[in-house]
Amino acid sequence: MTPEKNKIGSLPAVRRLPTYLHLLRSFSESGREMVSSTHIAEKLKIEPIQVRKDLAITGIEGKPKVGYYIPALIDAIETFLGWNNTTDAFLVGVGNLGSALLGYEGFRKHGLKIVAAFDADDSRVGQVIGDVEVLPIHKLSDLAMRMHVPMGVIAVPAESAQSVADAMVLGGIQAIWNFAPRSLDVPDGVVVQNEDLASGLAVLSVKLARTREIRETAGTMLPAGNGG
Amino acid sequence: MTPEKNKIGSLPAVRRLPTYLHLLRSFSESGREMVSSTHIAEKLKIEPIQVRKDLAITGIEGKPKVGYYIPALIDAIETFLGWNNTTDAFLVGVGNLGSALLGYEGFRKHGLKIVAAFDADDSRVGQVIGDVEVLPIHKLSDLAMRMHVPMGVIAVPAESAQSVADAMVLGGIQAIWNFAPRSLDVPDGVVVQNEDLASGLAVLSVKLARTREIRETAGTMLPAGNGG
Repeated sequence: MTPEKNKIGSLPAVRRLPTYLHLLRSFSESGREMVSSTHIAEKLKIEPIQVRKDLAITGIEGKPKVGYYIPALIDAIETFLGWNNTTDAFLVGVGNLGSALLGYEGFRKHGLKIVAAFDADDSRVGQVIGDVEVLPIHKLSDLAMRMHVPMGVIAVPAESAQSVADAMVLGGIQAIWNFAPRSLDVPDGVVVQNEDLASGLAVLSVKLARTREIRETAGTMLPAGNGG
Repeated sequence: MTPEKNKIGSLPAVRRLPTYLHLLRSFSESGREMVSSTHIAEKLKIEPIQVRKDLAITGIEGKPKVGYYIPALIDAIETFLGWNNTTDAFLVGVGNLGSALLGYEGFRKHGLKIVAAFDADDSRVGQVIGDVEVLPIHKLSDLAMRMHVPMGVIAVPAESAQSVADAMVLGGIQAIWNFAPRSLDVPDGVVVQNEDLASGLAVLSVKLARTREIRETAGTMLPAGNGG
C-alpha cells in the first residue's frame, strides 16, 4: 500500500506522528525490532484502532499477530514528514521564546535547521545564540531570497507578527511557523501553522476543573479519615 | 443555555478557545462591542458554523443578525477555562525551554502563576529567573504538599521526566503540563497534557510538502515568464 498522494492525512493524526516517533526511537535504542499496535496504544494511552489508522497514513500497515517492523516504521514516518531531509529556516525574534527555540537541539532530529536569526532590537543584533548569529531584521527578505529559505519561524510579539510575515513572504518563504498569538494574512500558496502555548494550557485547565468536580462529588461520599 | 456540567467540550474546540480570546481582546481594546460569528470566522480563516459550535461550549450563543456581545463572550470563555482565577504551578527544569516559560508573561493572562522553579543541576539552584528562585529538586514534593500547588510544568529531558512526575504526584499535584517528549505514567485522578513542539512542525512540514507538489504540478502548465 502506498500513501495517497492527494491527501495529507487528517491533521490530528499528523500531530500525533512525532509522539509515535519518540516512542519508536526509544524502542529502537533498546534493541527492539517488532512492536504491535496494542503495545504502542498501551504506552501512549490511546486505542489500538487509532494507532493503526494514524500509522496507515504513512503507507505502512502492521502484520496481524506480528505487528510493525520498527526500523521500517520509523523510516516511513520520517519520509512522510519529510524529516529525513533538512529544511532550512529563518527565525525572527530572539526574546525568551525565540532563544529557547534556537537552543532546542531536538529540531535537528526533526529535519529543521535554523540557519539565521533576526531581531528588530539593535542591542540583540550581533549576538550568537546556539551557533546562529542574530542579524538585523531589514536583511531578512533579501537573504531569504538569495538563500532560497523555504521556512520562517515567528517568535515576536503579536503587534509585530504581520510585518514579519510580510517580509518573509517578500523573501519567498513558503511556510511560516507562527508563535505570535494572532492570525496572519498571507497570500495563497503560503502555509501557516499557528502555535499557541495557551492551547495546551486551556485543555489542561479544563481537565483539572473536571477532575476537581469529580473529586468533590466523590469526596462527599467518602468515609472520614480517607483524606489523611 | 447553560454549559453542560458533565461535558468538557470537544478538546479541539477547547484548544481553539485561546485563539478566540486573543482576537476578542484585540477587538475589545479597539473599542468594539459586538461581533458576528461570520466576522470571527473570516479573521481566523475557519467556517462560521465551527465558530458557533466552538463558542457554544462556553454556554454563550450569538443572537441572529447581531452576533456576540464581546465583553460577555470574553468573560464566558475565561470562566469556562477557569482563567479568571489564578492557578499556582511549580516548574521543573530551567534549561532553555523552562527559562523561556518562566519568562513568558502571557501565562498570567491565562491564569497561570509559576510560584517556584526547580532544577537538579546545583549550578542553577539559587538563580532568579523572572521573579522566581530556582530551588533544588528534592524540595519539590514537600513544598507542593505544604503550599497545596495543583499544577506542575515539566521542562526536563525525556529521561528525567517520569521521576519528576512521580515527585509531583507525591506532592499532591493534580495536573501536569508535560513538555518532555515522552508519555508519563500517573495514577488515576491526575491529568496530564503533553506538549510536543514537534507536533506543530509535523503539520507544517506536511503542508509545505503538499504546497510544493501543487506548485510543481502547476508550474509545468504555466506560461514562461510568470515566475519573474
